[in-house]
Amino acid sequence: MAFSFRLLAQDKSTSARAAVMITSHGEVQTPAFMPVGTQGTVKTLSPRELGEVGAQIILSNSYHLYLRPGPEVIEQAGGLHRFIGWDKPILTDSGGYQVFSLADLNMVGEEGVTFQSHLDGSRHLFTPEKIMEIQHALGADIIMCLDECTAYPCTHQEAQTSAERTFRWASKSKEAHNRLSAVRDQDQCLFGIVQGSTYPDLRERSAKALVELDFQGYAVGGLSVGEPKLAMYEMIDATIPHLPVEKPRYLMGVGMPEDLVDAVSRGVDLFDCVIPTRNARNGSVFTHQGQLVVKNAEYARDFTPIDSSCQCYTCRHFSRAYLRHLFQAGEILAPRLATLHSVYFFMSLMRDMRRAIVEGRFDVWRRDFLKVYKNNSKN
Amino acid sequence: MAFSFRLLAQDKSTSARAAVMITSHGEVQTPAFMPVGTQGTVKTLSPRELGEVGAQIILSNSYHLYLRPGPEVIEQAGGLHRFIGWDKPILTDSGGYQVFSLADLNMVGEEGVTFQSHLDGSRHLFTPEKIMEIQHALGADIIMCLDECTAYPCTHQEAQTSAERTFRWASKSKEAHNRLSAVRDQDQCLFGIVQGSTYPDLRERSAKALVELDFQGYAVGGLSVGEPKLAMYEMIDATIPHLPVEKPRYLMGVGMPEDLVDAVSRGVDLFDCVIPTRNARNGSVFTHQGQLVVKNAEYARDFTPIDSSCQCYTCRHFSRAYLRHLFQAGEILAPRLATLHSVYFFMSLMRDMRRAIVEGRFDVWRRDFLKVYKNNSKN
Repeated sequence: MAFSFRLLAQDKSTSARAAVMITSHGEVQTPAFMPVGTQGTVKTLSPRELGEVGAQIILSNSYHLYLRPGPEVIEQAGGLHRFIGWDKPILTDSGGYQVFSLADLNMVGEEGVTFQSHLDGSRHLFTPEKIMEIQHALGADIIMCLDECTAYPCTHQEAQTSAERTFRWASKSKEAHNRLSAVRDQDQCLFGIVQGSTYPDLRERSAKALVELDFQGYAVGGLSVGEPKLAMYEMIDATIPHLPVEKPRYLMGVGMPEDLVDAVSRGVDLFDCVIPTRNARNGSVFTHQGQLVVKNAEYARDFTPIDSSCQCYTCRHFSRAYLRHLFQAGEILAPRLATLHSVYFFMSLMRDMRRAIVEGRFDVWRRDFLKVYKNNSKN
Repeated sequence: MAFSFRLLAQDKSTSARAAVMITSHGEVQTPAFMPVGTQGTVKTLSPRELGEVGAQIILSNSYHLYLRPGPEVIEQAGGLHRFIGWDKPILTDSGGYQVFSLADLNMVGEEGVTFQSHLDGSRHLFTPEKIMEIQHALGADIIMCLDECTAYPCTHQEAQTSAERTFRWASKSKEAHNRLSAVRDQDQCLFGIVQGSTYPDLRERSAKALVELDFQGYAVGGLSVGEPKLAMYEMIDATIPHLPVEKPRYLMGVGMPEDLVDAVSRGVDLFDCVIPTRNARNGSVFTHQGQLVVKNAEYARDFTPIDSSCQCYTCRHFSRAYLRHLFQAGEILAPRLATLHSVYFFMSLMRDMRRAIVEGRFDVWRRDFLKVYKNNSKN
């Protein structure tokens, strides 16, 4: 089935919107948060649990899957969905971010980026075309153009050079994608990525240029890399007005619950972030009152659930005291139950936002949510 | 509900039998295997999964729970069932085996055993009475008398001294249990443990003496500690005939699938062992053809399930190649899916044996099973 994106509601007092995105593996109700399954598994969770907590789409990392087990293994398995046992939508990223943040000795040229594997030091070259081949072998529903993710801070000149190269890569990516799509019987749609660091003029130029190329969706990349929160919000605002209303907008690598609420109100539809899963594995879980470090000694005799208003499996069956015991004892069930809860929390948050938008009360909902939710983030 | 054990079928050509054991948290169809939940969780699995794979009773370790989180925390939580979210039967062991195998500097006297915690080196004394208090605080359905588990090999004199002390401890345990039961509103039943190392005469004396004390069930302890398989079988045969037919018999710490089949045919009803769970975490899983090290490179492109005749969640959704990838990548889902499969395998094995006994074809079933199953154990 061909990709489509249909707007259902537009909030009156903000730019928040509710839509349904249709992919060849089913629907995604937006705004949506994508749990991150870096190596072909959302860490600690089974696909069944992911479905049960309400995940409609997950993200997986091309960089990691390319290095291990390799796209040819996954292709031979019948594609990523089949390999990992998840029959709902998947988005794979371009590997750009990972190459710049994880790999050693990366070197960027016009052709692409050369890097050394963080696993074994082996040398590899990612070009826009190569990344398309990898993502076609994986077979995700949404795939991303290779982009260069600049570090924060960087000069206007660096950011401009980089954004312009990212644009040329996007153009090559699209050509390669069209070529590959013609010979392969699978519906994949391609998103372009807006870059430009923290410079509004570059964000605007990058967005406009990409829109000229006509992608099926647009991502805002290069944010949540250490810049102040206000800069991030400013860049979203500098980008969104230049993107077509009828296409999905994806803010990469974001974020904390309060960021999701804020970005949704600025018109973003899609998100991904490791925060709920990574923090949970470290014993920190999300509640409607903010984050709670459930492994702390203060919960040793706290027989209430993590979040008493939560209906997830963890909160319906287990106490903070039990979770704390499991973390102390180093049991695998600890990160499992904590992750299950926090992903459920993020899914509920998106569902609540969407309902509020559809019902025309997003502004009130947002005020009520933020009144109770304690902002624990640092920026 | 009071404890009961009702024989349903007795095999004609072997001593195998099928029964139903009723505890205050429900029924257990025997022969039964108890997955081990050392620290209040069967490693990697949720209670829901345990129920789904067919576990009817689990074992938990008093020694570990005593040290962490402490019986008073669990009691305050409303008991072990409530604390860990498992509402089916639980058996707690006496801690005897752990004190002798895990703790440092243990010293046995008539009063009990002094030891140092393997966690923090703190000093503790386990007496028969203390162990009853701990197990009453935990609230398991079946609890065990403190016993001394001799190492293998040991002399006849050492084994005799130890077995006689274990008997005196059993007597004190029963008295303490009766005292505690009178003041606490919960139905717990107490099993005695037969010791005597690899000496048939001591096994017989130990069994007969315990039967005089009249326990609700009898365990065969001190086996599977390094002795040859034949010695283990011989000790089972030296013990079982002296135990009452109408009471459950529990072989502690056993074992491999072929051992379970053998011991069932010798009249054993209950088992526990860390083998399915521990081996699975190390990447070795059980199949009807024997063990398979699924993390090995040879399975990197094997897109068949672990065991194609298996109906577990793992085998219905995932390939050996995916499992292998997860193990390579160090993902928590790897031990999870492997454990789920192997516990399911053990549960199915017990269910198959039970059905064969009830249907009067155990001998044929056993021959057919062992014809296909490749014995990978060393002894």
